[in-house]
Amino acid sequence: MLNIGVIGYGYWGPNITRNFSSTEGIRVSMVCDKRPGALRSVQRDFPSVEVTTNFEDVLSSPKIDVVAIVTPVSSHFELAKRALENGKHVFVEKPFTDTIEHAEILIELAKMKNLTIMVDHTFLFTGAVRTAKELIQKDVLGKIFYYDSTRVNLGLFQHDVNVVWDLAPHDFSIMDYILDEKPAALTANGIAHVNNMEDMAYVTIYFQSNLIAHFNVNWLSPVKVRTTLIGGEKKMLVWNDVNPDEKIKIYDKGVNVENRETLYNLLVSYRSGDMWAPKVDPTEALKLECRHFVECIEQNKTPINDGEAGLRVVRLLEACNESLKDRGKLVDLSGMHVMSA
Amino acid sequence: MLNIGVIGYGYWGPNITRNFSSTEGIRVSMVCDKRPGALRSVQRDFPSVEVTTNFEDVLSSPKIDVVAIVTPVSSHFELAKRALENGKHVFVEKPFTDTIEHAEILIELAKMKNLTIMVDHTFLFTGAVRTAKELIQKDVLGKIFYYDSTRVNLGLFQHDVNVVWDLAPHDFSIMDYILDEKPAALTANGIAHVNNMEDMAYVTIYFQSNLIAHFNVNWLSPVKVRTTLIGGEKKMLVWNDVNPDEKIKIYDKGVNVENRETLYNLLVSYRSGDMWAPKVDPTEALKLECRHFVECIEQNKTPINDGEAGLRVVRLLEACNESLKDRGKLVDLSGMHVMSA
Amino acid sequence: MLNIGVIGYGYWGPNITRNFSSTEGIRVSMVCDKRPGALRSVQRDFPSVEVTTNFEDVLSSPKIDVVAIVTPVSSHFELAKRALENGKHVFVEKPFTDTIEHAEILIELAKMKNLTIMVDHTFLFTGAVRTAKELIQKDVLGKIFYYDSTRVNLGLFQHDVNVVWDLAPHDFSIMDYILDEKPAALTANGIAHVNNMEDMAYVTIYFQSNLIAHFNVNWLSPVKVRTTLIGGEKKMLVWNDVNPDEKIKIYDKGVNVENRETLYNLLVSYRSGDMWAPKVDPTEALKLECRHFVECIEQNKTPINDGEAGLRVVRLLEACNESLKDRGKLVDLSGMHVMSA
Amino acid sequence: MLNIGVIGYGYWGPNITRNFSSTEGIRVSMVCDKRPGALRSVQRDFPSVEVTTNFEDVLSSPKIDVVAIVTPVSSHFELAKRALENGKHVFVEKPFTDTIEHAEILIELAKMKNLTIMVDHTFLFTGAVRTAKELIQKDVLGKIFYYDSTRVNLGLFQHDVNVVWDLAPHDFSIMDYILDEKPAALTANGIAHVNNMEDMAYVTIYFQSNLIAHFNVNWLSPVKVRTTLIGGEKKMLVWNDVNPDEKIKIYDKGVNVENRETLYNLLVSYRSGDMWAPKVDPTEALKLECRHFVECIEQNKTPINDGEAGLRVVRLLEACNESLKDRGKLVDLSGMHVMSA
Repeated sequence: MLNIGVIGYGYWGPNITRNFSSTEGIRVSMVCDKRPGALRSVQRDFPSVEVTTNFEDVLSSPKIDVVAIVTPVSSHFELAKRALENGKHVFVEKPFTDTIEHAEILIELAKMKNLTIMVDHTFLFTGAVRTAKELIQKDVLGKIFYYDSTRVNLGLFQHDVNVVWDLAPHDFSIMDYILDEKPAALTANGIAHVNNMEDMAYVTIYFQSNLIAHFNVNWLSPVKVRTTLIGGEKKMLVWNDVNPDEKIKIYDKGVNVENRETLYNLLVSYRSGDMWAPKVDPTEALKLECRHFVECIEQNKTPINDGEAGLRVVRLLEACNESLKDRGKLVDLSGMHVMSA
Repeated sequence: MLNIGVIGYGYWGPNITRNFSSTEGIRVSMVCDKRPGALRSVQRDFPSVEVTTNFEDVLSSPKIDVVAIVTPVSSHFELAKRALENGKHVFVEKPFTDTIEHAEILIELAKMKNLTIMVDHTFLFTGAVRTAKELIQKDVLGKIFYYDSTRVNLGLFQHDVNVVWDLAPHDFSIMDYILDEKPAALTANGIAHVNNMEDMAYVTIYFQSNLIAHFNVNWLSPVKVRTTLIGGEKKMLVWNDVNPDEKIKIYDKGVNVENRETLYNLLVSYRSGDMWAPKVDPTEALKLECRHFVECIEQNKTPINDGEAGLRVVRLLEACNESLKDRGKLVDLSGMHVMSA
Repeated sequence: MLNIGVIGYGYWGPNITRNFSSTEGIRVSMVCDKRPGALRSVQRDFPSVEVTTNFEDVLSSPKIDVVAIVTPVSSHFELAKRALENGKHVFVEKPFTDTIEHAEILIELAKMKNLTIMVDHTFLFTGAVRTAKELIQKDVLGKIFYYDSTRVNLGLFQHDVNVVWDLAPHDFSIMDYILDEKPAALTANGIAHVNNMEDMAYVTIYFQSNLIAHFNVNWLSPVKVRTTLIGGEKKMLVWNDVNPDEKIKIYDKGVNVENRETLYNLLVSYRSGDMWAPKVDPTEALKLECRHFVECIEQNKTPINDGEAGLRVVRLLEACNESLKDRGKLVDLSGMHVMSA
Repeated sequence: MLNIGVIGYGYWGPNITRNFSSTEGIRVSMVCDKRPGALRSVQRDFPSVEVTTNFEDVLSSPKIDVVAIVTPVSSHFELAKRALENGKHVFVEKPFTDTIEHAEILIELAKMKNLTIMVDHTFLFTGAVRTAKELIQKDVLGKIFYYDSTRVNLGLFQHDVNVVWDLAPHDFSIMDYILDEKPAALTANGIAHVNNMEDMAYVTIYFQSNLIAHFNVNWLSPVKVRTTLIGGEKKMLVWNDVNPDEKIKIYDKGVNVENRETLYNLLVSYRSGDMWAPKVDPTEALKLECRHFVECIEQNKTPINDGEAGLRVVRLLEACNESLKDRGKLVDLSGMHVMSA
């Protein structure tokens, strides 16, 4: 039985705590937050869990095997480093770290100590992403032409990062998981309205082939839009995450480009072929992710969302900031998958 | 009573002919197309209209007051120039011309001869765009922060232009009509999959203020997506053109940024405030556009979609091509609204 | 070449005229309406068509082979009877007649004179209904358990009939066409709000087997709802006619009733299995119907929407009125498919 | 601090337990279920709660103040009667009881002992129903003309009741809460496909005025439909409970019945006026219901969902069974709101 300590009990901490609490093979032993009010919530909902306002209590406790770091990104590196140094496995919120260098140090450290790092790329465990991955692996879509994602909602919090670092880690990690190809270059355009941090941005990623990816992230919308189009030579997949009923739709092309009359009819139609919406598993993603983490530790396996996956996302995020500073300057990514070490 | 001759009877020509036929003050006298089959359709549907395979018959006919040019863009300049030289008003398909220079010559020519040019930016006459324009003019949305458009469908025709020149004229002309500010710089990224012409592209337009516009145009989708988000300081407008029932929705922000609990609740909500969907006038846009054209000629008024409007769109299109060639190079537009003459 | 005369040029008359005008093998020769304004519209849109305010001109003209009766139901019988007596084929608006007896007389008369009657059950020719019919014939749904239709919109006209006679003919004719079984008994409940005619009603039809059909018709809704659920032992078909994109959806059951856990999960899911939306032919229904009519006359074939089909609908309508009068009294229909003659 | 014991830990019991656990002023002390597996779940999720397989332990425990009965309807009466006799407040699943008589006895008993009965009509506490109630109270819709509900999903469980008793209590209780008028007569039609219990049914309720209500309940659909239309003289409210984003929509009529042209345009439109979708409070309904229950006990107030509300629903359910037996026989309800005592 593993014992986990959770550092940070803000918006996401309670979900992490609840899910690890109901995962076989692991027990939440301690929760740390600086705010006494947060700890009172812990005590009410999880009476058997120890609480503390000092994260050192978690990091140094001999009974703790695993540390979950559910704090702002600027603190991830220090907390994760201390945890790994103390021989503890690490579950850390996305984005993994605030710099590429920090990510590389943590990966190296975990490797040396044979510890497991999992970066909380929760979406990889949703039924929708698992279905999309499976369909693409089975070549249902054919050669992939584009990956086009829109993630838009209201984000009015006091952020320590811009909208790209807040929202794009979701989409970058999903793209990284679903597509086989590796990014070659990137360009990002964005703007700040409320303070000096970008609150909306558009990112285009070029690949070696003629695959292209695009990301639209935006904090200034009172309504949620969460749509990803994945266009293939044979079919297109549309993932609409705010549709409770039909999250994944697969559209046939259904047209014969040789036939002129067909093409004319097409212009006034809404779609050209059949559509198919596979039933998507509604199991809570975080629940499956917690299980995967425990399983990886127990069986010494590499998580699908390990430190390397986290690093690949951080590389894209850093490149975005570089491009944003110069209004869409093209940033080369060709060296990004070689570990610096 | 004006007499109009229509050159080009392909996909859009029959709509043009039908709508001018039922417009007061104008009569379709002649239709020209090189394909005899097209002319047989004209004779069946409009028995009283003269037909010809030679566009010179239209351009030189003394009874013709107005020429509608419904042909590929590469032929617009020559046909329009000849028509204007012969003293005829010109209704021309979008995009206006294939180069900035050509547009400027036509504008100058029309000015000298006191003739009217209308560029067929049909969408300006839809109920949706008129409603959006009106709401923005009444300051319902507050200061505009962004204009974000997606226009995606299957486009398998043998095109003589790329996807930007095919689809973006719609959106550029709408943005030009709706927003008061003028573009300052532009960047475009895109890629070609099927032949050497871009079949999908992403365009970002910067303005002097912190307004930003973005355009997602794509020919490789078996399903139509036609969505425009216009985000303002006070409210957001969502225009979904494939929704027959709720084309325009206005979302309130509805949140108090001071209240921490409200903000937390927000993360699990789909939207933050009330939504309102005004009834949009379903009158056919082309019908209103034809009426506006006749009215402008009769009363010597400037159309909202005159040659200048067409030129502003062509400037953006040229800049897109320049940026596309260099993977998102920033193209300065600051001089674009000064007529070269 | 057949010559058709159209009597009645109100809301639907122009559509009838336009569609017969573009149908091979038939020509619109005459249009009759009592209102001179309506006839001016005819002359503008169809300059070669003769107009008259006297329906006798149509009924007695020797050059007319076919009469289209596009008038209120109360006049159908007299006009159709006169047309048939004069040796003309009849195309008549739904519902066929105002009484069963009238329908039977017309059918008998047409039979004697070897003339064709077509009742304008336009929906039978929509892509959606043809797709549904085909899927059911191929046994995709399995044994049919229920047919459940909702047709709701604003209907504020001065009607000479109640909402059942206005809206239910669409659904009764579709059900009659799609299902193989014959109705056994019927019950109808409804109420009048604005005047003394029912403006909303609920009709349940029992069959010999445990198939059941239900119809919800309502004039008091500012938004259109047009949904039909057809539930089978294997799958369910949902036809949403106001959805431009996904008119027909087929839902798999996708559950194993033996598995308790599956069933529990089901309660919080939106659906239990895959969904499939076949592409539906967008060709205008009325166009296909006109073609079918001409073909039936030319080849002496029986239309799918002949007088008998019209009569079966009128029998249901009469039974509805009988049941409505007595708040849902069960009306036996077992004798309804035996011709009274 | 009140102490509650929960009897029944099947599908709904865990929700009841979780919600009372986090309600101020009450503590879950005991959970009873006959299945040891269910009790193991209790012990894992709520370590401090006592468990038992014998409901007598709950009913007779002196420390228990309140009993929650979360068992099949056939057992409600005996368990509730025993609980009340032992001086305990009762929270009971819907439907309240299996007969009118049983409901009356329980109400009488609670009155005599000054105990509180709450029937779990959870939907009354949803944001959607509270919003609808409020809008109707403020006369936003005008005089109510109809209440039209559809509740359709897959229901394959081994039920001890038919589909009306399973699904209609939700809708009957909502209608009872929202509308001021009292039912006058009822007719129900339905059919059984799988076994001898109705698995789909249609219920029409007449009122003294020309208000009418209709309920479509169906277990044979692989997709959920949960729509309620409430039509008023001024506006219509549409509640679509499977829409996460726009649960409540209010439609204006927006037409002037005097204007003939407007009416013609209407026929081809999707709706006639503006639509407005108020933001609906997403707070979990059961949480608010638990709070209301505790508040009513503490302050000796009558719950909005008291025994009388439960009885009114049971009266409708009994009348449905009577009508179903005789294919839609009209059942008089005029005496139903006089307590038999």
